[in-house]
Amino acid sequence: MSTSTVPVVENVLKLNDEIAAMNRVAFRAANVRVVNLIGGPGCGKTTLLERTARRFTSRGLRLGVIVGDLATTRDAERLIVAGAKAVQINTGKGCHLDANQVRNAVDQLDLLALDLLIIENVGNLICPVGFDLGHDEMVGMFSVAEGDDKPAKHPHLVHTSSVLLLNKSDLLPHVPFDERRFRADVAALNAQAPIWNIAAAKDEISPWLEWIDARLPSPAD
Amino acid sequence: MSTSTVPVVENVLKLNDEIAAMNRVAFRAANVRVVNLIGGPGCGKTTLLERTARRFTSRGLRLGVIVGDLATTRDAERLIVAGAKAVQINTGKGCHLDANQVRNAVDQLDLLALDLLIIENVGNLICPVGFDLGHDEMVGMFSVAEGDDKPAKHPHLVHTSSVLLLNKSDLLPHVPFDERRFRADVAALNAQAPIWNIAAAKDEISPWLEWIDARLPSPAD
Repeated sequence: MSTSTVPVVENVLKLNDEIAAMNRVAFRAANVRVVNLIGGPGCGKTTLLERTARRFTSRGLRLGVIVGDLATTRDAERLIVAGAKAVQINTGKGCHLDANQVRNAVDQLDLLALDLLIIENVGNLICPVGFDLGHDEMVGMFSVAEGDDKPAKHPHLVHTSSVLLLNKSDLLPHVPFDERRFRADVAALNAQAPIWNIAAAKDEISPWLEWIDARLPSPAD
Repeated sequence: MSTSTVPVVENVLKLNDEIAAMNRVAFRAANVRVVNLIGGPGCGKTTLLERTARRFTSRGLRLGVIVGDLATTRDAERLIVAGAKAVQINTGKGCHLDANQVRNAVDQLDLLALDLLIIENVGNLICPVGFDLGHDEMVGMFSVAEGDDKPAKHPHLVHTSSVLLLNKSDLLPHVPFDERRFRADVAALNAQAPIWNIAAAKDEISPWLEWIDARLPSPAD
């Protein structure tokens, strides 16, 4: 069968989408919104979620995090210290999370005890974008230290994201970064998504917190 | 055929390795050493190669660069301005360069007119590591802005690299980064590879320049 590669690849994605749909049913049944956070290695995803978990804890809210890395459990350990219910997935050589890994991780969480679930994907601006995990929304995250050209080089992530975060804005005086160019490149790819400057390490994350607040279950639910 | 996925995946890698071997033969015939530079998005790969190209030009040497990105020709444009012979590969949604893409790019370069060829892989710490391109050596690159935990999270890259570069060392006063932890994690994975602090944007790249100097054709060749 000379064309055998095509159906095999399609089957992998089809199976992923089927499991993602099952995940979505489970999330909705538990009335928990799910955010898929995607950014490059070291853009500050875990620091953002540590800060978010601390805010949640201080308000009596419960944040769940499923976090993917090739190796180590360092991120989950940091998040648990910050008060999150965190599960680490080690992907080995795998460059993204898939729906089945998320399903297995969910088995270790009590969805009914969560107010929000954030999936911190493997640090990679490329591969994670193509895999539905059952999430409600995708958030793309960049850091000013990565340079202003990253949105134009990663159009699929920008196009698919509901929100774009520009982290480490406190480093702007120290790095070459044309913010006007960054914002123009994003707008050309996705005119709807807001772009928020944040500095997670400095706890300057207000627009993000307001955005996720709007995703918490309402008291009437 | 219930097991059809396994042979298909193996065939893809086998074909890549066959083309990589052909690339390697072509590189050796032209007496040009080839370095595969791998680092995350925005760690400073292109800036390093711009600086390298300027040094080469001022010494009458000729640097070739094959550069991979999902989209845009911005990196090749920057490198050509800096004096390199640069070819851009746009991978679309592809997360790494493969040997066939490199073979096609080489067709646009005159190998006999180059003193060194550097392949700037797609900004990604994961997928590029598994694909032989026909290169002689792999160099792994990190940035202090990414945090000190990246080697432990990317063991395959660290294990496979001949040299590890720690870029943006000028930002150390402004970011949380435990250099002792970074170096200990690297040493545990690869005791042979040197780790050099550089600051490409400040033109502080001496150990890297000395290392590639040792890879230039000797006058006797």
